[in-house]
Amino acid sequence: MTTDVTSRPATGQETTASVRRITDDLLQRVEHRLGSFLEAERERFAGVDERAAVVLDTLSELVTSGGKRIRPAFCITGYLAAGGDPGDPGIVAAAAGLEMLHVSALIHDDVLDNSAQRRGKPTMHTAFSALHQARGWRGEARRYGEGMAILIGDLALVYSDELMSQAPPGVRAEWHGLRSEVHVGQCLDVTAAAEFSVDPRLSRLIALIKSGRYTIHRPLVMGAGGADRADLAAAFMEYGEAVGEAFQLRDDLLDAFGDSAETGKPAGLDFSQHKMTLLLGWAMQRDERIRVLMTEPGHTPDEVRRRLLDTGVPEDVEQHIADLVERGRKAIADAPVAPVWRDELADMAVRVTYRNN
Amino acid sequence: MTTDVTSRPATGQETTASVRRITDDLLQRVEHRLGSFLEAERERFAGVDERAAVVLDTLSELVTSGGKRIRPAFCITGYLAAGGDPGDPGIVAAAAGLEMLHVSALIHDDVLDNSAQRRGKPTMHTAFSALHQARGWRGEARRYGEGMAILIGDLALVYSDELMSQAPPGVRAEWHGLRSEVHVGQCLDVTAAAEFSVDPRLSRLIALIKSGRYTIHRPLVMGAGGADRADLAAAFMEYGEAVGEAFQLRDDLLDAFGDSAETGKPAGLDFSQHKMTLLLGWAMQRDERIRVLMTEPGHTPDEVRRRLLDTGVPEDVEQHIADLVERGRKAIADAPVAPVWRDELADMAVRVTYRNN
Repeated sequence: MTTDVTSRPATGQETTASVRRITDDLLQRVEHRLGSFLEAERERFAGVDERAAVVLDTLSELVTSGGKRIRPAFCITGYLAAGGDPGDPGIVAAAAGLEMLHVSALIHDDVLDNSAQRRGKPTMHTAFSALHQARGWRGEARRYGEGMAILIGDLALVYSDELMSQAPPGVRAEWHGLRSEVHVGQCLDVTAAAEFSVDPRLSRLIALIKSGRYTIHRPLVMGAGGADRADLAAAFMEYGEAVGEAFQLRDDLLDAFGDSAETGKPAGLDFSQHKMTLLLGWAMQRDERIRVLMTEPGHTPDEVRRRLLDTGVPEDVEQHIADLVERGRKAIADAPVAPVWRDELADMAVRVTYRNN
Repeated sequence: MTTDVTSRPATGQETTASVRRITDDLLQRVEHRLGSFLEAERERFAGVDERAAVVLDTLSELVTSGGKRIRPAFCITGYLAAGGDPGDPGIVAAAAGLEMLHVSALIHDDVLDNSAQRRGKPTMHTAFSALHQARGWRGEARRYGEGMAILIGDLALVYSDELMSQAPPGVRAEWHGLRSEVHVGQCLDVTAAAEFSVDPRLSRLIALIKSGRYTIHRPLVMGAGGADRADLAAAFMEYGEAVGEAFQLRDDLLDAFGDSAETGKPAGLDFSQHKMTLLLGWAMQRDERIRVLMTEPGHTPDEVRRRLLDTGVPEDVEQHIADLVERGRKAIADAPVAPVWRDELADMAVRVTYRNN
């Protein structure tokens, strides 16, 4: 940790290199905060029973397994761009709380989707089910594995809030909005998939709630709120919704066509879960042949993938992503933040939408 | 709502009738708070999509389906006994937050235990699975039903915290401790059941964490904290641990021998889930014949029930419950609260340990 950098308040004189250094330094402190928080909890429970230590170790392992920390990065960038003091530990707690919420959502998502892998390793419910089987325990292995994942995801959700209770009060309203919205959005998502809804309006709405707002817009606005700059909310929202849509389209492209060795997840999971993704909704609106295929019972993920390739969808989506990134850049062109932070936000839009995992 | 009662601060001159009236009035306000909170959330989401309104309606239905409100009652009693102002809306929010946490735990518990009924109605995951089947939706009905229950339980967990953010700051430390502890305790519980652990130490520990502390001791201490009376924590803890053990033994007796028409749950669920309850741990330590039966693979709930009856366990446990209630009464005999509140707490100990549902 570079004390002379973190303790210096924003002056408006930063360079691209210095803002990157301040941001990276704060993100480093978020890692420390997550680590020290979980370590203290492990100590608290380890004396109770060794089984409790396993719970904390399992959670810590996932937290440190190489997440991209996108939400903490947007929260911190929103805060610093708004002129927040980089030395304030409150914003570190807020960013750590956002990451802990995300870990909770991943654990529960993997149960909902029955995903076998996450970040190149067995998902939590899969690992606990396998343990149950290996030990020859009583009851159903699936219920035990999923049950443990439900509880450890709950624990992470509780911890996210414990961290957030140390954040500046200005983040609170947006935090409450974000958390309830993302869970309701998830309900819509699994229900739309079950109904096999072929409704591009609904898939756009779900993407907006689950990705744009959750990942970009609300973390940014939380950061600005932490620095008492509610005046930035409108510009950050416009930026976040455009970049969030691009982010989600990249996510869908990676799921459909990405290399699972790089993404750490099985390929084509959305298709096999009948997820009406933003990508599919977009493609269906443009090409009747894709709509017809999607309504055929028994179509396979490979058929969907091939049809998308045949109709030139990936190239078109690449162009759309580029347009959205440009729209995001314009949304903050006149925002009352130092030019170097506008550049940084424009650069972040590119980084999160052009990635391979 | 009787304004002249609720707005009057505690004077130390209350009668048994007046403390009961103040407590009941505050509990009534907790109901209103839960209702108005959920109504506002329903309005917020109903415009988004009709599927979102279903989510809020489902949660509201469970919240209003006749819970005993034991945790809110202890929180409010701890607060009033500590001299807290009955007119403060903060304590109402705290008690409502405790109830919302409990609703979240019930929803997830029912998935963990694969329970079919709760309060005489189909459990949430069962109802959503049935909907999936009735509509002939895609994917697996079980995963959809359990997935929706996971998400709606998460939503309730998030809401519990949103309510708690309006509580007096003095409740916070105990609240954080309670929430993480109960989830870790649940992990121990399902793991002990899977291992088929026959370890009375572990079953006592789990009961202490999941029942005594969660239901009685910590809500009471939260209430005292809300009135800035940390000095009451030790006496409330001693009371809570004794009465909590009695509460859990009653719970186990009702599960084993109760009338499912009254409890609203199937009978013998703990036995069929291989739960090493406090009752069983206690009985096994006293009678070798029960220990032998429990380690036999393939023993049925009926065999366990019969063996417990044959060896006189229910009568012995009744005596033990009476002793614990007496121990709880003694724990607060010298606590610095008005005598009328000591009586009220002694009476509550009786009410929660002698119940039929």
